[in-house]
Formats: sequence, C-alpha cells, structure tokens
Amino acid sequence: MVGVSLSAAMHSLILMDQNNQPLTRVVTWADNRSEKVSAALQQNGMAQELYRQTGTPNHPMTPLTKIMWFRQERPDLFAQATKFIGIKDYVLYRLFGRYVMDYGLASATGLLNLQTLDWDQQALKIAGITKAQLPELVDTETQLTGLSESNAKLLGLKSDVPFIIGSSDGALANLGVDAITPGKLAVSIGTSGAVRMVVDHPVFDPQGKLFCYVLGKGRWLVGGPVNNGGIILRWVRDQWFSGDKKPTYPELMQMAAKSVSGAHGLVFLPYLGGERAPIWDANARGIFFGLTRQHTQADMVRAVLEGIVLNLCEVAQRIDQVAGPIKSIQATGGFSEADLWIQILTDCFDQPVTVPDNHEGSALGAAVMGMHSLGLVSDLTEIHRLVSDSKQWQPNKKRAQRYHEFMKIWLETSQLVEPEYAKIAAFQQKYSK
Amino acid sequence: MVGVSLSAAMHSLILMDQNNQPLTRVVTWADNRSEKVSAALQQNGMAQELYRQTGTPNHPMTPLTKIMWFRQERPDLFAQATKFIGIKDYVLYRLFGRYVMDYGLASATGLLNLQTLDWDQQALKIAGITKAQLPELVDTETQLTGLSESNAKLLGLKSDVPFIIGSSDGALANLGVDAITPGKLAVSIGTSGAVRMVVDHPVFDPQGKLFCYVLGKGRWLVGGPVNNGGIILRWVRDQWFSGDKKPTYPELMQMAAKSVSGAHGLVFLPYLGGERAPIWDANARGIFFGLTRQHTQADMVRAVLEGIVLNLCEVAQRIDQVAGPIKSIQATGGFSEADLWIQILTDCFDQPVTVPDNHEGSALGAAVMGMHSLGLVSDLTEIHRLVSDSKQWQPNKKRAQRYHEFMKIWLETSQLVEPEYAKIAAFQQKYSK
Repeated sequence: MVGVSLSAAMHSLILMDQNNQPLTRVVTWADNRSEKVSAALQQNGMAQELYRQTGTPNHPMTPLTKIMWFRQERPDLFAQATKFIGIKDYVLYRLFGRYVMDYGLASATGLLNLQTLDWDQQALKIAGITKAQLPELVDTETQLTGLSESNAKLLGLKSDVPFIIGSSDGALANLGVDAITPGKLAVSIGTSGAVRMVVDHPVFDPQGKLFCYVLGKGRWLVGGPVNNGGIILRWVRDQWFSGDKKPTYPELMQMAAKSVSGAHGLVFLPYLGGERAPIWDANARGIFFGLTRQHTQADMVRAVLEGIVLNLCEVAQRIDQVAGPIKSIQATGGFSEADLWIQILTDCFDQPVTVPDNHEGSALGAAVMGMHSLGLVSDLTEIHRLVSDSKQWQPNKKRAQRYHEFMKIWLETSQLVEPEYAKIAAFQQKYSK
Repeated sequence: MVGVSLSAAMHSLILMDQNNQPLTRVVTWADNRSEKVSAALQQNGMAQELYRQTGTPNHPMTPLTKIMWFRQERPDLFAQATKFIGIKDYVLYRLFGRYVMDYGLASATGLLNLQTLDWDQQALKIAGITKAQLPELVDTETQLTGLSESNAKLLGLKSDVPFIIGSSDGALANLGVDAITPGKLAVSIGTSGAVRMVVDHPVFDPQGKLFCYVLGKGRWLVGGPVNNGGIILRWVRDQWFSGDKKPTYPELMQMAAKSVSGAHGLVFLPYLGGERAPIWDANARGIFFGLTRQHTQADMVRAVLEGIVLNLCEVAQRIDQVAGPIKSIQATGGFSEADLWIQILTDCFDQPVTVPDNHEGSALGAAVMGMHSLGLVSDLTEIHRLVSDSKQWQPNKKRAQRYHEFMKIWLETSQLVEPEYAKIAAFQQKYSK
C-alpha cells in the first residue's frame, strides 16, 4: 500500500485569476506587508473578536490580513482574484484540478470558524470576499486520486497512487515527535522557535496570545510561534567577534558553560526581530539588563541561550494555564544537539525532557497521518512505536529553583520596558539611513 | 615667595585616639561599608533634611554615615575615638600638631551647615559626636607655618615655608581648568566622572541629587559625581574580546567611529557599578536596550561611549535647571584625548567644548589658590592666564537634534527599569558564589 501525504507551511497566500493562473507569487508567513492592516484590527477591537471565532492571533502573517492588504493597496489584483489559496492548495490544484484545503491549514488563515469548521462569516465580510473565493474545505485525511498521466510521469508515480492532503507543518511536527497526548509539550528551537501542545477540544487564550489550530479529527493544536530562536545565536556569532575569530556554535556553548545558571544575574530579552508569542509586538527589541563589571563574555553568551529558553518558557506557562498541566517535554530543532542548551531548557521548564531521535518531525507526522488514512495504523498514537528517544534529561531541582526566581525578574523586566518599544523602533526607523 | 598648597580627596575618615594615634586606616570615598546606615537615613526621611542643611547627598561615601557605622558596628573603636578627621587633616596634624579642616573638605563630610559654615547641630546629634571631636574649621586660604626642623628636613623644605590648606580635589579641579565663572561647566571622565559648576551662593537641588560644596570664600561648587566613566570602557576592552585580541582604546574608538550618532538606536545605561549622580542607586545595573539583528559590535561600543556621556548630560541638565544656564564646557580627564568621544560630548550637550591643555587640574587649582593666599595673584580668575586651550569643539546641530530625541528615550528607559534594580541586585548577591 503506497500513498503520498502532504505537509506545508502555514499562512501562505496566492491570488488566482479566472483562468486559474496565479496573479501573485506566494506571500509567505514571513511577509509583514500587512502590518498596518493588522494594527488597525487591533485598535478597532476586531482582532479580539476574530480570535475568539478563529483561534488565529491577529498578526500580519495571517492570510486574512494579507487579503485585506491586497484589497487596500492593490485593488487591481484584488478585483481580478477569483480564488485566494495557499501553497499546498496550489500544488494540489496543479495535480488534481481541484481547489481544496485541509482543516489544518485552513484553521491558520484567520478565516475559519473553529466551532463550525466552516469559513467564518464575519471574517469573510472583513476580508471583503465570499466563500466561493476560497478552496473547498476537507478533512486532513482526505485522499485525492486521479493523477494525469503527464503529472504521474513527472513525479515518477503510478497514476492511481492516492494523495493524502495532510495538515500544517506545525501540527504534523507535534505528531511526528510523539507529542499528541495531553500534557506532552513540543518545544522546538531552530532559526525561530515554537511551543505547542495537542488538546482534544478547541482552547482559547483569554489574552489572545496563543493560537489554536486543527491538527486532524478530534485533535487541536494550542501554542505559540516565536521569532527569536537560533537566529539570535547566529547574530552573536556574526557580530560579537571580529572576522577571523568567529567561534563555531560548539565553541559558543563551551563559552557559555564557563558561566552558571542565571548567568550571574544577567537578563536577556531576545526580541531582536520583534516578537510574535508571547508578547505579539513587532516593535519589541533586544535587551541586556543587570550588567555588572564582573560579567564576562561567557555570561553574555549564556544569558542569550537562557533568554531564548525563558521566552519559550513564558509561552509554555500560558499553555499550562489554559490547557495544562504540562507533564513532559519533547524537544526538537537544531538546539537539541547542544547538551548545555537542552539542560538549560530542562531546568528552566522544571520538567523531564526527551529528545526524539528524528529531525524531520513534520514529514514523519505527515507519513503517519497518511498511514492512518490508508488503514495501515489504527490510531495516530501509534507514532510512539516509530519514534525512538535519543536521550532523556531530568531537571536539577536546585537550578530549577534558581531559574524560577530568575524568571520572575525576567518577566518583570519584560513588562517594564514594554512601553518604550514603539519609541525606540520609531527612532531606529527614522535614522536608519 | 614660596608656599605649599594642598588638595585632597573628599569624604575620607580616620578615627584618632586620645594619644593622637590613628585607630583605623583611612576609610576612603570608595568604601561602601555604611550602605545600610545610608539606606536607613533615606527611609526615615532624615536624608532629605540633612541634605538641605549640609548640601551633601546621602550616600555611604559620606563621613557622617561612616561615623554612624562605627558607632553601630565597632562601638569599641567609636568609644575610643577622640577625633574624627580626614586624610588632609591627618597630614597637617603630623606636620603642625593641629587638627584643622578647610571649609572645602568639611562641606563634603555631611556634617557642615552650609549656611552658618559651622558644624551642623542636627548632624552631630545623628552622628552621636560633639563639635570637640571634629577638627577646627578654617578658611581654604589659611596659612599654616612652623614646620619642625625634622619635618622640614624630611620634606626638603625650609621650616618657615607657609602651607596653604587649600580645598577639595573636586573644587580645585574646577579652578584648575578655568571653570569658576557662572555658566562654565567642567565635565570630567577618567575612571569615574564628574560634572561641576561654580556658583556664588549655595544652591540646593529640590530632588537632592546634586552636591553643593565650598570651593573657597564666596564660591560654591554644585554638581554630581558619577561612578561609571572610563572604567566601563575598560570592562568592554577586557571582557568582550578574547585574550589575544584585546583592542587598544584607540582601536575601540576606531570601531565606534564605524557606527553613527545614536548607535542606530541602541540605548546603553552605564550603571555597571551602581551609580551616584544622577540616580543615586547603589543597586543600579547596566543595560542595553533596543538591540536588533542589524546591530554590530561597532554599534555596541559606540552605545557605551554615548551612554557614559548621556549619563553626564543628565547631571548637567539638572545643574542647568537649578544653577544655569550652562553656556560652555571645559572637558578634562582621560577621555579628552579621544576626539570621537569629545565630539559625542559636544553634540550630546549641544554646547561649545574646550579641552584645556593641562591634565592636573586639581594641582594647578591648588597652586593658584596658594598664590592668591600669598598675594601673588589678585583674584582666582587669573587662572585664565595659566591655562591654554588645546582645542575647541562646536556642536553639529543635526547630530545635536538627533541626540536630543535619543536622550528622551534614554531617560525614559532609565526610569522604566528603576523598580527592578533592587531585585536583580539581590539575585546577584544571593547567587554570587
């Protein structure tokens, strides 16, 4: 039994014309052109209302705000658009000639009502489009068949191979690292980062700071995406050291190991690229707080590692409040190769941490979802048999207590400086030339 | 006509016993043992009252709080002490067998009433000592004569050479750099820093954040001492670079020159060693605020130079408010050798800056005061003839405007984080081992 199962990045948008030709390139999750649209939704109170219907936090990443941007800024393209679709939908259209979208990706557009699992009337109205301009909604285990001979040849597949539509990369990543049971948190740090947990009913954060997306039938994903992950360590490597003395990442870890938990009381807020979860502020900026003349470069590097983790910890605490309790953690992404960083995570979160022995969680998750659709496994939880644990970590209670105290100061610092972000961002923009 | 004129560091204390032998070593201005005593004075409101009488800000540096510390912590020594004197008084006692103190140094003890120029009754009561336990007060131009033959021989002087008692190093520094006329501000950055202006009557800061000390007859010194000067640049040099790659100070300046005014919007608060003026908070700590991934090491070094200057600028703005207007600046100290740093000062202060061509301002000031006492000059302002200007700097109006905007953000950041200083300091102390 053979099939092809799909995973795709969230929040993408392509405008299609009446001849089913793309009017735009893919506008990806990282495209912030609709920042002002998003800010306006925040100010007029619409953002909160939409979040409660759709589970998608208001942000320029969402297809909803991107469609609004096209309506305002490119009315020519908007008027010609007969369909607004995502990247997976585009591939499937090219393969099967149908506009379909799985509930997983649909739930991350800002346009899907999470209770009815249909396009949300209010969101459609705000976007200025009709249901007919969006793809047909289908279950994540839906099979598509009927590849044309030419497409089958192009892909090197038989034309009767079924395609399972699958879900979003974020949701499938949780599945792929065996984090789909209550209390099992997936924490990932790559270039950016994410904290996600699977729940059996839609969960909304009263403060609107967590997303809630569909994973598949009867399973939802609650969590937060974080901009500032390993990319901040790359900044340290590239900017703190002169050309011929740039350290490797393992060398940076060795430096940080010379410091101690809490970096001798040096707070680092990692918001160098603005931030999504947990603070959702594009104007946020990075901070060192607490510097003394005793602080070394080793302390500063360690503070960076810890600051990135504490930021994820803040997201986790919110998940714990609305959908917890968290009982254990599956850690993935590039950072999981650094023992020191994983130990910092384990102590900061004060939970046992497992590093699963596979680095392509989303792909494995998609495969298992496909296998379930094809009847090869009886339940998605059978992923457990396919994932082997490379290593397990236990928190050190003394260090955990220290981080507990440190995090209070970290959080308070974050709250205190918040009013100044917009001002420094404006100054930086004004004098960027 | 020959004489010896004296300058000495402020705030020192030595306890003398009934046999005129020292009971202690010199407790210098940098000794913070009386921190808790000072904090208690702040809390019970006494600090503000004493400041209005004495012109000395409440701080562990003051002899007042040091005497209180001895009473509480070393009652054995306190009970034996028949005199409480300073370093200059000790030298003069050894030379002339008299306990005398000039109004300049006396006014920095926290015990002198600035209006009556006598020891303050309330301060004496709080200290738990009597007037008889302090030196005799004398004018700064008082001459002492009668060196013993042995002392004269030891010093290589004739025994009839008059000693002019002089004033404090801070006051004489202003004199020595020709900053004793209204509106002429002396700004100094060495290891630490200071901003001082001479006025013709005692000036009190309603917020108690500036000192007011006696310079000499009819002249007072208003200003603020700053802990964090060049010592912070030394920290940068020693801690940000690996062993074999430590830059020289001129190399650090070259790095900073690659950045721009405002360091691309990077705020640095230089409070790595706690701070006296302008915030008077021993728990204050250093901060970088506004980091983005575009910030380079050059920006970070420049932010340090600018942060040190902006901190002095905050002190200057306060002087301008209570004793201004400031019209020009005399810059001294090690930093005056770095053209870039002086230009940053000039632009931040938005005032013309002169770098006098002598690096030992206090010594020259003492000499001129001695010459006046001996009738060799008719007025202290004749210092002007003795000081040649090495270089003059003019503010650039565009950069000054940018710093004006930047300083608002700098000040707001400083105020926002203030509530967190005590907490991070406590954490650092708790986990310093």
